[in-house]
Amino acid sequence: MTNPPTVTACVLIIGNEILSGRTQDTNLNHMATTLGGWGIQVREARVIPDIEAEIVASVNGMRRKYDYVFTTGGIGPTHDDITAASVAKAFGVPLVTNPVIEARIKSREAPPEVMASRLRMALIPEGAVLVDNITGGPQGFAIENVYVMAGIPAVMRAMLATLEGKLDAGLPVRSRTVTAYVGESTIAAALTRIQDEFPDVDLGSYPFFRADRYGTSLVMRGVDERHLDLALEAVKQAIVDAGETPQDVKYS
Amino acid sequence: MTNPPTVTACVLIIGNEILSGRTQDTNLNHMATTLGGWGIQVREARVIPDIEAEIVASVNGMRRKYDYVFTTGGIGPTHDDITAASVAKAFGVPLVTNPVIEARIKSREAPPEVMASRLRMALIPEGAVLVDNITGGPQGFAIENVYVMAGIPAVMRAMLATLEGKLDAGLPVRSRTVTAYVGESTIAAALTRIQDEFPDVDLGSYPFFRADRYGTSLVMRGVDERHLDLALEAVKQAIVDAGETPQDVKYS
Repeated sequence: MTNPPTVTACVLIIGNEILSGRTQDTNLNHMATTLGGWGIQVREARVIPDIEAEIVASVNGMRRKYDYVFTTGGIGPTHDDITAASVAKAFGVPLVTNPVIEARIKSREAPPEVMASRLRMALIPEGAVLVDNITGGPQGFAIENVYVMAGIPAVMRAMLATLEGKLDAGLPVRSRTVTAYVGESTIAAALTRIQDEFPDVDLGSYPFFRADRYGTSLVMRGVDERHLDLALEAVKQAIVDAGETPQDVKYS
Repeated sequence: MTNPPTVTACVLIIGNEILSGRTQDTNLNHMATTLGGWGIQVREARVIPDIEAEIVASVNGMRRKYDYVFTTGGIGPTHDDITAASVAKAFGVPLVTNPVIEARIKSREAPPEVMASRLRMALIPEGAVLVDNITGGPQGFAIENVYVMAGIPAVMRAMLATLEGKLDAGLPVRSRTVTAYVGESTIAAALTRIQDEFPDVDLGSYPFFRADRYGTSLVMRGVDERHLDLALEAVKQAIVDAGETPQDVKYS
């Protein structure tokens, strides 16, 4: 594909620690922002436990539905790291030792039992290619359209950064944001009309309560900058018509 | 059901703003922690866009797979708030105006067009019951095992709190945590043995890098406190055997 109108992705977060509430996930937010900037739209995210059947079912469902699947978590050296084996099973291929990861692991000396555990991280699905890890630790991998990365945020970010420019991408999604101390319902009818007028703009309305006042952030997202600018002007006018002042206009 | 061995839930986060990266979700973490404490285990979470077909498919898939589904987002007064209509469609029932929500909305005066937008929030699926909103705003609702709540964290929390003691629950999941400045791979083999010895304990291993040192948090989760205590002692011994010191033991 070269510059199709949209390129889509699903983020698959594999980890009991997110589902138990022990850990607050931040990987989805970073991936959504980064991929969006590259022209890849995250359309769905799933958080699933470290259970092989769940990982296999999600990988196989999502890799057919979206252009890309990005997974985080479960590629370390311990018994609960089952992502590589599960992805291999999803693709029906064996796990094989990758000599490049193996060499990186063996470059750090360790007692035999410790080395044996570390070498689990060299096992990737047959046919997978590496996703580099610029922190110096073991690499992630990609098989077809599924990219398998670490769960530790700093390591995931280091891996994702190496993919910049290497993935298919559509037009990047741009946004316009404007805020006003106006209740959502006060401008709801105007927003409906504006959304109908600009169907290619995704117009979102997000209420907040700040400094003892209710307000609303209006966010317009889309790939056509002209339509975004026209929609922004219409929203600002709706705020003025409601007797309030548009504030904090942001472009991205 | 009265005290079955496990009661499970899926969290369904409905919102383009999470998938675009504009907003960092915190609702999953709060729900997982709160529900876990009540004896309801969150087994999966999905973040999906404000698209009717996606909401219908996820609600119908998840309500059959888990004991409960909790949704957040999309129940406000604007055009992009389509959760109630989508859930009604998932259950094959019409949307009807709920007189209790309607009365609460009408208690605050507003111009006709604003009131018309607000009254969208009184539309819930036929047969649904209310989830109270102690912030004073419009209520959420439940239909069968699907609980529909606001996306604004403070409002979601206020709604969820009203459900305490009203849901079926299993035994609450307890945890033991111990930390050590030891690499994961150093104790990986011991962890595998401990996990095999206590199959009803979910033993997780989470590496971190702090104050220039690598460390690992070991987390044991399960409903049998005796097994948790025994597993904790075994993990502490494994840390000692690796020449390190168990630290920061936590019980919950």
